[in-house]
Amino acid sequence: MGGLFITLEGPEGAGKTTIIEKLTEDLASDGVEVLATREPGGIEIAEKIRTIILDKQHTMMDPRTEALLYAAARRQHLTEKILPALQKGKVVLCDRFIDSSLAYQGYARGLGMEEVFAINEFAIQGAMPDVTLYFDIEPETGLKRIAQHAGREVNRLDLEKVDFHHKVREGYHLLLKKFPERITSINAAQPIESVYEQAKETVKKRLAQAGMLK
Amino acid sequence: MGGLFITLEGPEGAGKTTIIEKLTEDLASDGVEVLATREPGGIEIAEKIRTIILDKQHTMMDPRTEALLYAAARRQHLTEKILPALQKGKVVLCDRFIDSSLAYQGYARGLGMEEVFAINEFAIQGAMPDVTLYFDIEPETGLKRIAQHAGREVNRLDLEKVDFHHKVREGYHLLLKKFPERITSINAAQPIESVYEQAKETVKKRLAQAGMLK
Repeated sequence: MGGLFITLEGPEGAGKTTIIEKLTEDLASDGVEVLATREPGGIEIAEKIRTIILDKQHTMMDPRTEALLYAAARRQHLTEKILPALQKGKVVLCDRFIDSSLAYQGYARGLGMEEVFAINEFAIQGAMPDVTLYFDIEPETGLKRIAQHAGREVNRLDLEKVDFHHKVREGYHLLLKKFPERITSINAAQPIESVYEQAKETVKKRLAQAGMLK
Repeated sequence: MGGLFITLEGPEGAGKTTIIEKLTEDLASDGVEVLATREPGGIEIAEKIRTIILDKQHTMMDPRTEALLYAAARRQHLTEKILPALQKGKVVLCDRFIDSSLAYQGYARGLGMEEVFAINEFAIQGAMPDVTLYFDIEPETGLKRIAQHAGREVNRLDLEKVDFHHKVREGYHLLLKKFPERITSINAAQPIESVYEQAKETVKKRLAQAGMLK
């Protein structure tokens, strides 16, 4: 459909935000039109859905309700923002997409990757990313970075989450095996400059293949 | 799991609300504990989801987003209200459930019954109704009843919807063929007393089979 759909995956603290900012600048200076977005993408309906998911009052929320709500918000973000940009031939850089649901809800929360994939297939109707950059990092290392960023020590609550994030990482590793052509794993424990170079190289190679670089 | 899960399906104007009220009274006087509910059932999370679906500002809402939101609200209503009542051995009378999504979104809106069934299977995890009463009526007849109820004539907007409701009815007829053991079709064009007698007979027969009538 024209354009190139690139998603960035991996835990918080892996550097995704920085990478997206730098990639957007660099591609723009190469004359490539870029849409940088992250779910729910400022789309009113998707934002309202996300508000329900994140509301701390909703302690009764069932994990399957949550997974369906993520799929619903994803659908709306896709149809209102991502697909129109791709149709205009743009490069879309999206912070998190289907793989987040597969790794977090499907694997780490135990709903099953196949089942979560099925509801997301309904949501995206084959609009899978062309390229996915997965930023791989030990949960403990990512955690330290987030805490440093916030100017504090790693606390007890953070540590309780470490087990969960190990499961999320295992989930991503399974996805790497399942989609080896689509997903490129990048070691995010390296200095951010090296991480960025590897990300940029992967993206530019793919853009060149698609004839989208002058 | 104990209890009996009964759903009522069919268009507005078919008499479902009256039937549920009378059934609830009659079963209670037989000493049967009844929970009468209708989606989203007063469940906070489900009500909030329904508010997003029904907001008239949301003209951009994609039909697949809508179907996923209905499934999400259904899941929460099921886990917070229906399943606990069934586990206590109650009879649950639910106004609309999975078949509404199959007939309206799956068939009449053209998303595909199989696909809509798949996301609802994720939502309900096998908690299909034990008995479904389908109140069958010509859309034109149902429409006249609703208009009379509101004290007005059938208008142009009503008539534009008739085609859609014919498709919904076709959808329900396909479901009758697909689930002949579960779904009983009742001619809702009859006087309401006859419709009710048939509904009550179907439910009591099934309660007797389940050993739930003294």
